[in-house]
Amino acid sequence: MSDETPSRRAAAAFAQTAETGTPVAFADLVALLERIFLRHGTSERVAAILAENCASCERDGSTSHGVFRIPGYVGSLKSGWVDGRAEPTVEEAGPAFLRVDAANGFTQPAFLAARDRFLEMVRDNGVAVMAIRNSHHFSALWPDVEPFAREGLVALSFVNSFACVVPSGGKAAVYGTNPMAFATPVAGGDPMVFDQAASSMANGDVRIAAREGHAIPAGSGVDRDGKPTTDPKAVLDGGALLPFGGHKGGSIAFMIEVLAAALTGGKYSREVDWSAHPGAETPCTGQLFIVIDPERGGTGAFADRVAGLIGDVKEAGQDRMPGERRYARRARTLRDGIPLTPARLAELRALAGDA
Amino acid sequence: MSDETPSRRAAAAFAQTAETGTPVAFADLVALLERIFLRHGTSERVAAILAENCASCERDGSTSHGVFRIPGYVGSLKSGWVDGRAEPTVEEAGPAFLRVDAANGFTQPAFLAARDRFLEMVRDNGVAVMAIRNSHHFSALWPDVEPFAREGLVALSFVNSFACVVPSGGKAAVYGTNPMAFATPVAGGDPMVFDQAASSMANGDVRIAAREGHAIPAGSGVDRDGKPTTDPKAVLDGGALLPFGGHKGGSIAFMIEVLAAALTGGKYSREVDWSAHPGAETPCTGQLFIVIDPERGGTGAFADRVAGLIGDVKEAGQDRMPGERRYARRARTLRDGIPLTPARLAELRALAGDA
Repeated sequence: MSDETPSRRAAAAFAQTAETGTPVAFADLVALLERIFLRHGTSERVAAILAENCASCERDGSTSHGVFRIPGYVGSLKSGWVDGRAEPTVEEAGPAFLRVDAANGFTQPAFLAARDRFLEMVRDNGVAVMAIRNSHHFSALWPDVEPFAREGLVALSFVNSFACVVPSGGKAAVYGTNPMAFATPVAGGDPMVFDQAASSMANGDVRIAAREGHAIPAGSGVDRDGKPTTDPKAVLDGGALLPFGGHKGGSIAFMIEVLAAALTGGKYSREVDWSAHPGAETPCTGQLFIVIDPERGGTGAFADRVAGLIGDVKEAGQDRMPGERRYARRARTLRDGIPLTPARLAELRALAGDA
Repeated sequence: MSDETPSRRAAAAFAQTAETGTPVAFADLVALLERIFLRHGTSERVAAILAENCASCERDGSTSHGVFRIPGYVGSLKSGWVDGRAEPTVEEAGPAFLRVDAANGFTQPAFLAARDRFLEMVRDNGVAVMAIRNSHHFSALWPDVEPFAREGLVALSFVNSFACVVPSGGKAAVYGTNPMAFATPVAGGDPMVFDQAASSMANGDVRIAAREGHAIPAGSGVDRDGKPTTDPKAVLDGGALLPFGGHKGGSIAFMIEVLAAALTGGKYSREVDWSAHPGAETPCTGQLFIVIDPERGGTGAFADRVAGLIGDVKEAGQDRMPGERRYARRARTLRDGIPLTPARLAELRALAGDA
């Protein structure tokens, strides 16, 4: 989601502010976020996983899924909407099909509880599916798939969220922003990973634009009457986003509802009802992974072939591949620290209960 | 591909002409096309499969993949570019990974040779992958995936073609039109199937527009200098199409090159070189299938859940789902015959060697 133009703009604006702040070491940010999660009722395991995940987004410049999201996590925990101590259950529904019930907890701890067995399934069979349900995903998708590509695998993942996107030609929101992520190994380099919403822009970026008073691009959203608008507040206040790319993006949003919710036993975006939990922000839906061992294709040089394609794409004039900016920022912030504004840092410390 | 707006427009214009023609029974059209394939050097099995496939596209109103394509098939066969008698080989690369070498033949006969074993793999494991290489795909993708959904399975397929689409921000063509198709069962109705190019429009529709003298929509293509154009001839004459939906569509086009070519051992779109075979039109690349048994998800009512989602989408104002127009036209043409203009019918009969 961090690679789309409107996102890019919002994230760049946000990053620019942040870039002027105090540099915080990655490990220190993880520790600070961990204290916040623990203080708001998660188990130690869940705190460690979410803190690392959220700090990784901040580290890589995925700011709309970085510490900006911490108040949302806290709101969901405080409201009792999500169970920060949930114990996921993992069930083998077939030699290549793993079913995971996140038990109303966050997705990432459920995913990681099943990941080792899932990798065995992929290695044993050539492909496997992991279907997670009753799960709260509130982060970017790339952190879930990038590690598969680092192990030489091709990964696809789909997650639905809460109804905020209208179908093609429709007036009322049915789909979530419904991101999909794809990761592939690349010989001699970092994996190529894209993570893109099926909506015209990411919901986090709409919220950033609303907070910072920027207009969103024309063609991104509609107001509560289904009329086109560039006001992010009108989108958030009863309006909705449009799918990217017209009816084709709408079909992809539909497919993601089917894969992430119907297929997993999770809730559709439209079924998310947190009205009894004021402050809740983390949608409880489902997530699907499809992971393939590309060496089974028999080419013997899969990652080299992908590197060759990327060479062609760049020679044809594309300036950079999805994910490259993340890797560049990751290298920089791991060296120099992650810049956070004093206000942001104070807010996080207050949430952690620091004096 | 038949559901995008520009396609829709071109197909509608084409269909309108065709609708005024002589009605031909589906079985008669299949028999006529079969004679054409046989007369141009295919085996009986290949002729039967391709004739049924191409007639099905014409029947369903996928006119850009219907009999309009017959001269292209014939050109490829006459030029020696494709082997109409190829014997595919099927190899198990893992319990859930089937590898198919189409041996420079058409994709559909290779796919069908492996399909029964593939279905067993899906039923046994919950998911399976079929990777086809050295294969010529010159038709729509929906005929490949719709039958899986009729058997209660969820199917995804990806195929690359020949370089005619520029990467995001690029000037030279790297990707093919790279369609993807998705099919899911729907309780109480026909499967929901979409089949959409990663390009702004399907290549067949550009060719129809060029032949009929229509402009293509702004934002669809570039000329040989990488400049935007609405002239379909400029796109075909050294120009290229753009991905749909900006850089997100570009990422999908990239993913499809990786899945359909790098992963299968097939050629990238850019590697298709038919220069030694004048008249050849069928790209020789690869195709990937991912088919999932949704009952493994454990909901027990997957197809009902999908029907419910479609109800929500329509209630929100989307007028129809992808594929619905195909089913409607299928019912009509199976009853009333498939209308073909006298000129088209004469052309086909001449190719079949009729007096």
